[in-house]
Amino acid sequence: MSYARQMLDTYPRTLNVDADMLAATIDALSDCAQACIADTDADLSEDNLAEMVKCIRLCLNCTDICTATAGILSRLAEYDADATRPLLEACAATCKSCGDECEQHAHMPHCRICADACRRCERACRDLLGALK
Amino acid sequence: MSYARQMLDTYPRTLNVDADMLAATIDALSDCAQACIADTDADLSEDNLAEMVKCIRLCLNCTDICTATAGILSRLAEYDADATRPLLEACAATCKSCGDECEQHAHMPHCRICADACRRCERACRDLLGALK
Amino acid sequence: MSYARQMLDTYPRTLNVDADMLAATIDALSDCAQACIADTDADLSEDNLAEMVKCIRLCLNCTDICTATAGILSRLAEYDADATRPLLEACAATCKSCGDECEQHAHMPHCRICADACRRCERACRDLLGALK
Amino acid sequence: MSYARQMLDTYPRTLNVDADMLAATIDALSDCAQACIADTDADLSEDNLAEMVKCIRLCLNCTDICTATAGILSRLAEYDADATRPLLEACAATCKSCGDECEQHAHMPHCRICADACRRCERACRDLLGALK
Repeated sequence: MSYARQMLDTYPRTLNVDADMLAATIDALSDCAQACIADTDADLSEDNLAEMVKCIRLCLNCTDICTATAGILSRLAEYDADATRPLLEACAATCKSCGDECEQHAHMPHCRICADACRRCERACRDLLGALK
Repeated sequence: MSYARQMLDTYPRTLNVDADMLAATIDALSDCAQACIADTDADLSEDNLAEMVKCIRLCLNCTDICTATAGILSRLAEYDADATRPLLEACAATCKSCGDECEQHAHMPHCRICADACRRCERACRDLLGALK
Repeated sequence: MSYARQMLDTYPRTLNVDADMLAATIDALSDCAQACIADTDADLSEDNLAEMVKCIRLCLNCTDICTATAGILSRLAEYDADATRPLLEACAATCKSCGDECEQHAHMPHCRICADACRRCERACRDLLGALK
Repeated sequence: MSYARQMLDTYPRTLNVDADMLAATIDALSDCAQACIADTDADLSEDNLAEMVKCIRLCLNCTDICTATAGILSRLAEYDADATRPLLEACAATCKSCGDECEQHAHMPHCRICADACRRCERACRDLLGALK
């Protein structure tokens, strides 16, 4: 069981969102942030650097927004739909762009794995968006 | 002149947004992140802690989103309206909530200053939103 | 298999450190950062807030340093002992302080789990320090 | 006056370090983080990408450690020499490596400015190290 899930299970107050779905989203965000950090570095180790530039930039953006979203989703008591909904939309859109770009280089195993992390994270953000009132 | 501005002035490619406005937004985001980090710590030093809890949580959220937004706005070449617009909206909404809450404690100088940083940042995000096509 | 591990396995260059140990450290750092983010929020939901203040501050510090260390350890090609060794020492010391404090509140399940994440992370940082030349 | 300085001036407790020096260090860390974020993106816009790879990696490391150090220095009440001293040493060493590399490309204005931010930040970290007991 992930630490995100263990921590949700011991939260001293009642959650107003499904704990399974929330923990899965936080885990997908952490995984995606880590995959994008590592993919940036792997991209920089490739020979055809000019082709990797777009991928590097999108991975950097994706790292930043996934890290922030994971933090904000972990602070449940001040949940504010006005801020959380557009943040999840921005995060899903960033994961989509980054996943699309990584998929263009899916012959490189690091980009294939990163694309997979981005796809899972995009889906998790959209599922949570659907569940949030 | 801020480093954000100096760096924009030496960017090797043409920007598709006004450099003054972009630099002012990045500076407002950095200022707001720093004010919120410091305000969290100052709030924790107050005696009436129970009244500060909401302020602390909103400051933590505001730090996370301002830091991410500053990073993403600094990566100009892969600007993507689908992701940048909702991120700026989420950031402005978070700054508004945090500024409103800090203003409730404006008799504490640290919350007054933090409210001011949040207001300036909210305005900068909205100005940039208005300017982005 | 974690994304940190999957990404290391596809790194385009040769690593000069054991991939199992490095992946385990990056995972422990991500877990600890997430546990500390969530513990900060859980602490803020407790009634005896005055007793939780030290724990909150140490969790915030631990989140910051674990996140930075995970990022830097994921960029292997420019590994620089002058910077990495003191960073791992600082990270291990921060995890120790935070774990000690969380253990004081081990009757609260969220602090018990966070203490566990801090202990594992401290050990992982020290193991990696021992392995790095 | 920077927000870091304004916030220090309103801190509800007594600081055990000189407020001018601390505010100057936090400002230098924020400036350096921002310069490194922007320099990463500017480097990625250059034609001779292969020569910029080391600079990009060091800028990413420098961003991560400066951001974390600014956060931790802003939380004064739980100041812990065992963690703060090696963190400042790691940060100064990272700023030095990054500044040295940026200086190699000082004919590019963005690297010249980033080198300057790294030098100032390294000095500020070393000054604070000297002042901390």
